[in-house]
Amino acid sequence: MITVTLIGAGNVAQHLFKAFSASEKVHVNQWFNRNIDPIKEYENEVDITDDISGLKDSDIYIIAISDDAVINVSKNLPFSNKLVLHTSGSVNMHHIDKKNHRGVFYPLQTFTKGAKLNFEDVPICIEVERKSDYSIVKKLAIASGGKSYRINSDQRAALHLSAVFVNNFTNQLYRVAHEITESQGVEFDILKPLILETAKKVQTLSPYKAQTGPAIRKDTKTLEKHLKALDKEIHKDIYELLTKAIIETHGN
Amino acid sequence: MITVTLIGAGNVAQHLFKAFSASEKVHVNQWFNRNIDPIKEYENEVDITDDISGLKDSDIYIIAISDDAVINVSKNLPFSNKLVLHTSGSVNMHHIDKKNHRGVFYPLQTFTKGAKLNFEDVPICIEVERKSDYSIVKKLAIASGGKSYRINSDQRAALHLSAVFVNNFTNQLYRVAHEITESQGVEFDILKPLILETAKKVQTLSPYKAQTGPAIRKDTKTLEKHLKALDKEIHKDIYELLTKAIIETHGN
Repeated sequence: MITVTLIGAGNVAQHLFKAFSASEKVHVNQWFNRNIDPIKEYENEVDITDDISGLKDSDIYIIAISDDAVINVSKNLPFSNKLVLHTSGSVNMHHIDKKNHRGVFYPLQTFTKGAKLNFEDVPICIEVERKSDYSIVKKLAIASGGKSYRINSDQRAALHLSAVFVNNFTNQLYRVAHEITESQGVEFDILKPLILETAKKVQTLSPYKAQTGPAIRKDTKTLEKHLKALDKEIHKDIYELLTKAIIETHGN
Repeated sequence: MITVTLIGAGNVAQHLFKAFSASEKVHVNQWFNRNIDPIKEYENEVDITDDISGLKDSDIYIIAISDDAVINVSKNLPFSNKLVLHTSGSVNMHHIDKKNHRGVFYPLQTFTKGAKLNFEDVPICIEVERKSDYSIVKKLAIASGGKSYRINSDQRAALHLSAVFVNNFTNQLYRVAHEITESQGVEFDILKPLILETAKKVQTLSPYKAQTGPAIRKDTKTLEKHLKALDKEIHKDIYELLTKAIIETHGN
């Protein structure tokens, strides 16, 4: 049994609490947040506290808070030589105060408040300072239900950056499509199956092989027609730039 | 029973043949292609032909061929006053020769050769020249298993343009992520659950509401770090433009 103390009350902390609670191999010893209110509803399931000086002993402490707060909270931990992990994609592992053993437990997924997420769909990216800590962190990741990947800091940075492209930027393209369909009074719903199928396609096919459409076909007539049809300047810019990117990727 | 003649042998024609064949309400009377080879394998299931002058009588003729060929093939049809539909997102309905009644049967989905696709996930966008033809085309769409939507030409153009954003451009963002992860020797596989979840999220939430990440948070520190980390000029350009788009969408 791995004992865990959770620190923080945001989306990631809440999802981790649920995943850990569902496992027989993990026990959440205590859940700390500087403001007790958001975790109050869990008081019958776990020992909750807002007193950092009274933290109990656990195998692993997981800091799941906003990036900027990691340094300070880790400094204020009232113990040393314990294993402390943060969950951020972009915070340096060494921002955790060096009085403890440090590591990262980065769940690469988009967490929506209240939405249920199967942890099978949450890759856990692991980084540890001390080699000997790897095995218990891996066990924790697997116990949560996720797949675990051991990575280094540069790789984590690359993943975090890539996540912006496949999540935030992709979502903005969905938004552009929403604006275009709305401008003609046609339901955005019609595009939803295509959105899903596009994401499914690259689960087995590389994005390189999955590419289709007027840019890769160099169908100049359609490209011109599309550009002309776009009203907003920024939509035109996105259309031109991503068309150029597709053509660069697929050569001449 | 609706009788249908299929014209063309590409992905769309093949998927339509399978969907129609699975329905008890549709009978594929005949399948024409100017080159018989790609449909040869179906000769025991349906009457195949490469002789356009010998086309049999059907309720509906569906032209599922490349955009540029619609005008000519529809001219060469050896009959008139029949209902002829094309399946293109971007070809004008009136490119079908006017000797027949015209319409569009546009399945808005990405079709992969050989991959199975449930027609429940294929919205069928319908346009007809004569009002009285709508009901049989709608029946055909529903019989194929898909949801049907009646739209006009401008709406179809908007959908076709939007599809480039949510399919081709989104796929190119996946490709960029593939390049970034590869450059650090980390598996693209780690991003696949996030790709899928991002697409799932907008099935129930608007892209506007689903947005997260450093751009919407105006997290300048992360934005700068990311831009610095990108090697390729075009990746930087995409990062900057889509960040700008997110900020414009979500105001100041």
